[in-house]
Amino acid sequence: RTDINLAVLPGDGIGPEVVAEGLKVLEAVTAGSGTKVSSTAYDLGAQRWNATGETLPDSVLEELRGHDVILLGAIGDPSVPSGVLERGILLPLRFALDHYVNLRPAKLLPGVESPLAVERVAPDGIDFVVVREGTEGPYVGNGGSVRTGTAHEIATEVSVNTRFGVERVVRDAFARAQARPRRHLTLVHKHNVLTHAGHLWRRTVEEVGAEFPDVETAYQHVDAATIFLATDPGRFDVIVTDNLFGDIITDIAAAIAGGIGLAASGNINPTGEAPSMFEPVHGSAPDIAGQGKADPTATILSVAMLLEHLGRTDEAARVEAAVAADLLERGSAVRSTSAIGDAVADRLS
Amino acid sequence: RTDINLAVLPGDGIGPEVVAEGLKVLEAVTAGSGTKVSSTAYDLGAQRWNATGETLPDSVLEELRGHDVILLGAIGDPSVPSGVLERGILLPLRFALDHYVNLRPAKLLPGVESPLAVERVAPDGIDFVVVREGTEGPYVGNGGSVRTGTAHEIATEVSVNTRFGVERVVRDAFARAQARPRRHLTLVHKHNVLTHAGHLWRRTVEEVGAEFPDVETAYQHVDAATIFLATDPGRFDVIVTDNLFGDIITDIAAAIAGGIGLAASGNINPTGEAPSMFEPVHGSAPDIAGQGKADPTATILSVAMLLEHLGRTDEAARVEAAVAADLLERGSAVRSTSAIGDAVADRLS
Ligand SMILES: CC(C)[C@H](C(=O)O)[C@@H](O)C(=O)O
Ligand SMILES: CC(C)[C@H](C(=O)O)[C@@H](O)C(=O)O
Repeated sequence: RTDINLAVLPGDGIGPEVVAEGLKVLEAVTAGSGTKVSSTAYDLGAQRWNATGETLPDSVLEELRGHDVILLGAIGDPSVPSGVLERGILLPLRFALDHYVNLRPAKLLPGVESPLAVERVAPDGIDFVVVREGTEGPYVGNGGSVRTGTAHEIATEVSVNTRFGVERVVRDAFARAQARPRRHLTLVHKHNVLTHAGHLWRRTVEEVGAEFPDVETAYQHVDAATIFLATDPGRFDVIVTDNLFGDIITDIAAAIAGGIGLAASGNINPTGEAPSMFEPVHGSAPDIAGQGKADPTATILSVAMLLEHLGRTDEAARVEAAVAADLLERGSAVRSTSAIGDAVADRLS
Repeated sequence: RTDINLAVLPGDGIGPEVVAEGLKVLEAVTAGSGTKVSSTAYDLGAQRWNATGETLPDSVLEELRGHDVILLGAIGDPSVPSGVLERGILLPLRFALDHYVNLRPAKLLPGVESPLAVERVAPDGIDFVVVREGTEGPYVGNGGSVRTGTAHEIATEVSVNTRFGVERVVRDAFARAQARPRRHLTLVHKHNVLTHAGHLWRRTVEEVGAEFPDVETAYQHVDAATIFLATDPGRFDVIVTDNLFGDIITDIAAAIAGGIGLAASGNINPTGEAPSMFEPVHGSAPDIAGQGKADPTATILSVAMLLEHLGRTDEAARVEAAVAADLLERGSAVRSTSAIGDAVADRLS
């Protein structure tokens, strides 16, 4: 087994705290395997922007490219105007490293409480994965405004969708669906209103689907999909959707599967031409930063996804199992960030 | 009291069935008041399109303008390609009649089952209203595609937002919040990514808010808002948001407040320069059409909104109370479309 050359972006707020626990678990699970984990931290985030005005310098981006994989905590702080760090760091990373598969599993683990009346609406459990497109759609930053600040202001946002971009993520989603027992893929869009983008997605799913005759497909408008996420989430296996719809439904998915404190994600470049990046779905939660209150579970599960991505399937499964066991034992007990990291790491040693 | 000159668009699928019950209730509640309800039906929908290729002829639109108010059932049928009737009838009606306030209340009534574990996540109940912008945003139809059907296809969708359009709906939402006991307004957008449109919305809420110093405001990104809709819906009072975000969150809102079978809506032109239109949030449900299985409650509650809009506040309240009593009595019993209409109408006679 090869060594792991990891770039770490702890970021802002609770980011550094949860990342520390993720690294603790990564060390624990790889210990004794002969693998050396070397990690380099980069200080992207609010502090750097406040001090220097820099978001993602080219030199840092180039260094990041030299790593196997990236672990990100969270970026964002009230001291920075909305959009600056998102459009200056998070989205440029996803775009520059061509993270076109934004993978977000939603699995309700035993012992975890859902806001849903699960026994009634999801008697067979919740276990699906959202493949969110990560490099196109309304996220391209292709908007503007004229007569800004006047009574005649017009502001636009352009969703850009290409056959190239849609096809590669749809093919990835089909392959993931094919590898799962249920082999079911749902396209979520709004093709009755966003007809141009919607029909591109729809045609692409139909055409790529011919390569995967054993995968059953379904379609839901995004509004209807959110209803089913609340009333019958068990129907979903793999969902493929655009960048903005994916942003929205993965937060609902996280909520129903036990909360944003547990939701992991991977920003994946399946070609391997640039490092993939793993991060909890939650934000930097500045209100609880530095208090040891943040739940590092989402970051630890992101580390499991990272291991899976590196082909270290056994270790990924061991981390997941350790988290599952910890959640079952934890119940509603409140433990500190490091206590949770320790508990999971202990199970791996 | 003046007479009610109503245009009715029964539409497709279950539309005619539920509209019939809505009219039954309208007759019942106005009976004895000296008001004459005259209604004219127009056959817009799939059948007309299949027969003539027409969606919304100018002549029909002109006739609709001559009415006080419009009641719509549902439009849509599998025989018509996706987008044709939406972009040919539903959205042109909202745009031409300048329905800039798309009003969608979400109230969990006693006896109604929610998919949420309500006792845990909404102990104080669910009672909020979404003011969805109805004439702008990604719904303007300002998209296109080039190299369509090739490997080089590019499809765009443009969200168009104006200060004029945002300001008028924001002001309406503030006024609604001011008239409610909690006086709380939440703006839902995604201004960290859709910075141009988002900042227009944000600035507008700040500026218009100065006219409503007694209304407290909050902001949620759309993804976070969906989490709170699942985990803490009681926090919301009035929500104001754009056309697409509003489409999505009102379906979640409907789901958590007991289902799309109960969700009413108003497409309102507050200036009175064109008739407002009331419709259930649900679609035409072709799979159960003609079987007397559809729940007309959403249409009946839309009739209550229609009455409220016409200033007939007492009658609106009586319809709502009759529905509430019926829902409490109904429990999980399955009744036919007309049985529900009869039961509500009987309570009003
Ligand atoms: C912070 C923001 C830019 C980001 C997004 O919208 O993608 C976040 O919400 C997420 O889901 O990862
Ligand atoms: C049918 C469709 C055009 C419509 C919309 O997206 O507005 C519907 O979903 C609604 O919410 O009224």
